[in-house]
Amino acid sequence: MAAQPSSVAICGLGMIGGSLALALKASGFASHVLAYDHNPDALAAGLAAGVIDSACEDLDGVLTADVVVLAVPTVAAAAVLEELLARTAHGHQGPVLTDVASVKGNLAAAVARGGPAPRFVPGHPIAGSERSGVRAADGALFQRHRVILTPLPGQDEDALALVQRLWESAGAEVVCMAVAEHDAVLAATSHLPHVLAYCLVDDLAASPRREDLFRFAAGGFRDFTRIASSDPVMWRDVALANRDALLEAVDEFSAHLATLREAIASGDGDRLEATFSAAKAARDAFAQRDVFAEREARRR
Amino acid sequence: MAAQPSSVAICGLGMIGGSLALALKASGFASHVLAYDHNPDALAAGLAAGVIDSACEDLDGVLTADVVVLAVPTVAAAAVLEELLARTAHGHQGPVLTDVASVKGNLAAAVARGGPAPRFVPGHPIAGSERSGVRAADGALFQRHRVILTPLPGQDEDALALVQRLWESAGAEVVCMAVAEHDAVLAATSHLPHVLAYCLVDDLAASPRREDLFRFAAGGFRDFTRIASSDPVMWRDVALANRDALLEAVDEFSAHLATLREAIASGDGDRLEATFSAAKAARDAFAQRDVFAEREARRR
Repeated sequence: MAAQPSSVAICGLGMIGGSLALALKASGFASHVLAYDHNPDALAAGLAAGVIDSACEDLDGVLTADVVVLAVPTVAAAAVLEELLARTAHGHQGPVLTDVASVKGNLAAAVARGGPAPRFVPGHPIAGSERSGVRAADGALFQRHRVILTPLPGQDEDALALVQRLWESAGAEVVCMAVAEHDAVLAATSHLPHVLAYCLVDDLAASPRREDLFRFAAGGFRDFTRIASSDPVMWRDVALANRDALLEAVDEFSAHLATLREAIASGDGDRLEATFSAAKAARDAFAQRDVFAEREARRR
Repeated sequence: MAAQPSSVAICGLGMIGGSLALALKASGFASHVLAYDHNPDALAAGLAAGVIDSACEDLDGVLTADVVVLAVPTVAAAAVLEELLARTAHGHQGPVLTDVASVKGNLAAAVARGGPAPRFVPGHPIAGSERSGVRAADGALFQRHRVILTPLPGQDEDALALVQRLWESAGAEVVCMAVAEHDAVLAATSHLPHVLAYCLVDDLAASPRREDLFRFAAGGFRDFTRIASSDPVMWRDVALANRDALLEAVDEFSAHLATLREAIASGDGDRLEATFSAAKAARDAFAQRDVFAEREARRR
């Protein structure tokens, strides 16, 4: 376990990879940050802005680092991971590998096809921005945010400890979780809400009374649909990568909505009030905890 | 049509009624504001805070005013309206009547049972607050907000003009719309989103992994579920009062969600991307217009 600063390679230099590069250089965790991206403009922009120290000409270049952070879009993560595993004796040799993808099950399945890959540590920072690209990199992006690591069977403990220190040095709080648990939690609290928001807004946009609908929509609608302004390609990829957990969340939601529909149709006010009250209590508790967590973080 | 200030009676002295009382006194539209509420504490608080000038001992008291604004909760609106119509020859005599309820179809149906009520002008200010009660009254609540009036068959034009001036003097922009159109627009942009947010949060709260769900929910979830912190009783009443339009909105949404589910299940990325992109374009345009409207209002 290296106590001294490490060289870190970012594979896929976008907003997330660039933000991590800045954070690791600022904290001293990384003595040198190199990067590879299939788009040479991203590398040139990263060098020009001082986000990275050097650029690799090909994927093999990243293997010279102590740690490789896979930060490509969700749609490409499994394929690039497989390329990296092919070059590192399936994660038995070479650098510690980690990633930042929003879905973990498809990566775990890709790994499992070749047996344990002890030095690959799947990770997911719960942080983002509506901006994208390396020019939007922000060294403070991960501060006071959570990062979920989902260790796989046969996980090398030193590799896990190194990736944990990496994220902590970027200011994040690290939590470990099983792959299936991670994907179910994210499906319910993030992927499903995005699908619902996109679904509602597309519904209204296709309506013959479209003009009036958007004209008289109020503040509640604005908040509720904010996530429908997210990147459609990224969320298409997330929906496909986390298909099984997302379908389960959609089905559970649809079944619950159907019971509420029946309560409305039959005038069952007690049922509606019980559901709405339970939801309000849970949402208020969540908001309260959110406020406390924020205050706590500011005191640190 | 009276050009001079009028006496206005607020029937149901909560946050909305109290805010309107303050606004009408400040603008000079009302020379005197009286109020009736079945809860004497609300009247005492309104008098003590200077929100109203006098309190009525019973419902008949409000009929001495030039205009009566019915501002009771949705669940009571139709019944109290019928009481007022019974006392005013079905809106042919006495004060001009208007209301602030979120649903108009059930009131229109109550009126229709007795034929036209020419001096009753249904209204709905698209403004609200998470706070309630007369102590939360805010004279600026309606400024730069829209108020929808839904004139009924046989509507008296002078009554309509008076109610329009009343709202304009409170700083609002008045728009007229058919009852069915109003209820469909509000069902789609407000009532349905509330049901969806309550439904999702109640789902998560009932889950065995409840703790992790709320622990790892991020900013998108916070915005998406903000309206699930709204008053459960009020929204129960709205859902029941606007049953038909809301069921139609729920069914349309459910059918659309089912097609998205199939696209996820079959890995139809093109379909998902097309839907998400159309939604993003509509949401961005809405947000843009919202920003412009806000800037425009600030310049005034």
